[in-house]
Amino acid sequence: MAHEHLDNVKHYLLALQDRLCDGLAKADSQASFKEESWTREEGGGGRSRVIEDGAVFEKGGVNYSHVYGAELPPSATAARPELSGRAFHAVGVSWVLHPENPHVPTSHGNVRFFIAEKTGEPPVWWFGGGYDLTPFYPVMEDVVHWHRVAEAACQPFGEDVYPRYKKWCDDYFYLKHRDETRGVGGLFFDDLNAGSFEDCFAFQRAIGDSFLEAYLPIVERRKEDGWNDQQRDFQLYRRGRYVEFNLVWDRGTLFGLQSGGRTESILMSMPPLARWEYGYTPVPGSPEARLTEEFLRPRDWLGEASATP
Amino acid sequence: MAHEHLDNVKHYLLALQDRLCDGLAKADSQASFKEESWTREEGGGGRSRVIEDGAVFEKGGVNYSHVYGAELPPSATAARPELSGRAFHAVGVSWVLHPENPHVPTSHGNVRFFIAEKTGEPPVWWFGGGYDLTPFYPVMEDVVHWHRVAEAACQPFGEDVYPRYKKWCDDYFYLKHRDETRGVGGLFFDDLNAGSFEDCFAFQRAIGDSFLEAYLPIVERRKEDGWNDQQRDFQLYRRGRYVEFNLVWDRGTLFGLQSGGRTESILMSMPPLARWEYGYTPVPGSPEARLTEEFLRPRDWLGEASATP
Repeated sequence: MAHEHLDNVKHYLLALQDRLCDGLAKADSQASFKEESWTREEGGGGRSRVIEDGAVFEKGGVNYSHVYGAELPPSATAARPELSGRAFHAVGVSWVLHPENPHVPTSHGNVRFFIAEKTGEPPVWWFGGGYDLTPFYPVMEDVVHWHRVAEAACQPFGEDVYPRYKKWCDDYFYLKHRDETRGVGGLFFDDLNAGSFEDCFAFQRAIGDSFLEAYLPIVERRKEDGWNDQQRDFQLYRRGRYVEFNLVWDRGTLFGLQSGGRTESILMSMPPLARWEYGYTPVPGSPEARLTEEFLRPRDWLGEASATP
Repeated sequence: MAHEHLDNVKHYLLALQDRLCDGLAKADSQASFKEESWTREEGGGGRSRVIEDGAVFEKGGVNYSHVYGAELPPSATAARPELSGRAFHAVGVSWVLHPENPHVPTSHGNVRFFIAEKTGEPPVWWFGGGYDLTPFYPVMEDVVHWHRVAEAACQPFGEDVYPRYKKWCDDYFYLKHRDETRGVGGLFFDDLNAGSFEDCFAFQRAIGDSFLEAYLPIVERRKEDGWNDQQRDFQLYRRGRYVEFNLVWDRGTLFGLQSGGRTESILMSMPPLARWEYGYTPVPGSPEARLTEEFLRPRDWLGEASATP
């Protein structure tokens, strides 16, 4: 039964990977995704697809993987010690886009499905996923559009779904050592197994299916904007924060590295180029200062937008 | 008593910071160190010194800090659970140098001293520290020189000291997810409190005092070497590994971020610019391939050197 679920999810995820790559390559118009398949000694493997040096995407990846093993790694059981020691299957698609133009936001998303098994006991399964946006020069209209699509995707599953997963996203993509969020958020959910498998799977599909609708209009609106060296420098500096989050705080990265995942695929999320500068502080009142002051903290984007005439 | 020790160590460390900055600025010949003092809300503070855009050093820092608090952070007690919950003082100098020229190795070192206190019990103190070298285009002569100075610094303290701390360095500066060492090693020690305070303190001074002798001759020999874009690209790519080590595996960074240290000072170790490239593999037989194949694995540099006629 559980493996019938697994097959259904795999089928959806492989098709999702195709659709994401098609939509993103079309938006790029110049580069295309290169595919590399890999296998993992302990069980499983994946299909990595990477786009590089495009007209829009300096680097991007859309990875499908299915890994399994005799024991869930610690990062997966920290919050659920009762599953410690169980055999597992983990299947997912995750994607990260690093545009070259500082006016086009970086974006990341993933949808994943786990099964934890133990002889003589029923299998435990759960879904997780979400997507989030990391602009460098944010435009309020884009942020509101992003969250409207996220809200619409959640809406059929209950009024409380968007606010709950929007908050979880703010909480998760938070750099404690910098006291700022990674970006303007979006959705994040984990450990989802309330209700039936069919309900949860339908929700996961709603998230996966809505990503391009959330992201591509922003890409289209901003990709022709001009930029200068100073804006590019700021983008590279902010990408340093992206690296800090992924390597210090991200449970997904930790899970991958701990479970003996394929390092090149896990660290595909790294930006192509990043910069650190000791003691950098943006000029007060500048667009660079506005990013952290106005955008990199949890806000009710939709409530504030509808309050504006 | 313990605080008399603390004062002695502080006195040494502040002078060491001066000497390191003087020696490094002289080798750079163009840029000088800028100083910034800071205090920490929970107790303590530091004196950060940064050099940027020099003739040799693209970025470098030599930081002194003394932090204290009511409870040792988890990263400091992972290996010594009996000290968990104790109040602490931690004082140290740490330094990282990122040269611009790919032929000049990156280097890092630090010396630190801890006191863990509990009412009604004698204080527990220990020393830690070491230094390590991360070349991009290593020259065997440089690596042997580096280890000879390290060995000579350890020699007065016993024949087994260099091999033991050389091995600890290889083990510590190891990127498990890449199966390679960070560089060609050096010395690493921690939890040192065997014998008297005076003996341990003398050893710490021997390490701190020998760094410039180990590093500067290599800087002098390589700083005029020409380099091309391809070598610079490779250096930036390898700096990505440096970031990965520091953020994923380094206990010092973790301790700093967990103990509410000053983020800008802790992450001063980050390179000014770093690059990631999906699936990069050096051309077989190239200098870039030699780095990982011949240098980024534990080797008996001195034994092999003396075996050569």
